[in-house]
Amino acid sequence: AGGLVGVVEEELLQPRPLAHEVLLFPSDEARQKLCSWIGSATTTLECCVFVISDARVAAELKEAAARGVAVRLITDDKTALDGGSQVFGMASAGVETLVDPDYELKSGAAPVPRHMHHKYAIVDGRVLLCGSYNWSYSASARNNENCVVTEDVYLVAKYSAEFERLWREFKAAAPLSQQQAAIRIQQIERGNRERRRFAAMARSHRAANVFDVARSAMDIASPGNRKRGRG
Amino acid sequence: AGGLVGVVEEELLQPRPLAHEVLLFPSDEARQKLCSWIGSATTTLECCVFVISDARVAAELKEAAARGVAVRLITDDKTALDGGSQVFGMASAGVETLVDPDYELKSGAAPVPRHMHHKYAIVDGRVLLCGSYNWSYSASARNNENCVVTEDVYLVAKYSAEFERLWREFKAAAPLSQQQAAIRIQQIERGNRERRRFAAMARSHRAANVFDVARSAMDIASPGNRKRGRG
Repeated sequence: AGGLVGVVEEELLQPRPLAHEVLLFPSDEARQKLCSWIGSATTTLECCVFVISDARVAAELKEAAARGVAVRLITDDKTALDGGSQVFGMASAGVETLVDPDYELKSGAAPVPRHMHHKYAIVDGRVLLCGSYNWSYSASARNNENCVVTEDVYLVAKYSAEFERLWREFKAAAPLSQQQAAIRIQQIERGNRERRRFAAMARSHRAANVFDVARSAMDIASPGNRKRGRG
Repeated sequence: AGGLVGVVEEELLQPRPLAHEVLLFPSDEARQKLCSWIGSATTTLECCVFVISDARVAAELKEAAARGVAVRLITDDKTALDGGSQVFGMASAGVETLVDPDYELKSGAAPVPRHMHHKYAIVDGRVLLCGSYNWSYSASARNNENCVVTEDVYLVAKYSAEFERLWREFKAAAPLSQQQAAIRIQQIERGNRERRRFAAMARSHRAANVFDVARSAMDIASPGNRKRGRG
């Protein structure tokens, strides 16, 4: 029996075993498996991950978006601004991105920021990846980490529902398009970093060759300043 | 049919549903559930958790150890020294404790320390708690976090095996009893903190009333010094 009947018979009589494995780190093989699962997405990809600094995982997300997968990302506002963060690159490349609104809960003492600390993803509404594992290089290369891969329908449903709830909450709290805001923040932050770098450089050279430093800093700073002037 | 036959019949005919739930944070109810699972241990408790600063969870572990449960804890060497860490209190109270050996992997650049970043526990070799959730106050009160609770035998077996593997690895790397070392490190660290506190206090008062500060600092420092002298 070929054709559709054949496919149905095969599914019924020889069902594909449900994904059910544990990825343990440090391990480059486990990292490759995680990338394969993300790369296997054909329809949707919901990612809810605290730290994303692994360029290879980020590339999988960008590629998925490029081939028409609806990729949505929820991440943490603070780690998004870390040096190696891949978040803004992905947002620029078309991954729909939200960060936590970071509202400050007043608890008597000084307010402390909230973290969007989840590390999970759902591939095609079917496979859940979930554990301690952030999408960072150190998590795969050095740390002791775990990540469950499962098609358990109860777990997938629970984590999907939480994703939708957070997506609604964070979107409602965003005063403007988060994706636009994310890209803008990154531009500002890059400018700040350049200025801090110059300040440190200037301090260390203060006594000796202050005029040389000032001249080289003006060369660095001027393209950005001209851009801002036009914007 | 009473007695043992009754128990067996009840188990066979009306089996207890296997635990299978997801705890989502921030939520004090979820935190209470987590504490209840830990508190339910009757034989063994294997904990492999990056940050433990929640005094209530720590109390559950200490109580379990006190009532004869074999409690073993693997945690991170760096977070164990954090201000609010409960690790040394638990080690002192009889929880068998290991920290990662933090070997430095040379990868061309400067060596970067490894993290024992897991956040999971196994109750009575039967229930796995696993997710993004560290045992800290902020994780339960502010952050977005998840923790799977499951009796899935495959997952329990995988995480148990990883616990035993890490336990052997970390124990082999320990040059002396880790528990003794842990308590000793905590004593040293407390002393360092006192000295830093005094140094900061002295700096801020330097101009005005330096003699008063020196006198009060000597009052603070002397009991510890006397103890160390006896030890």
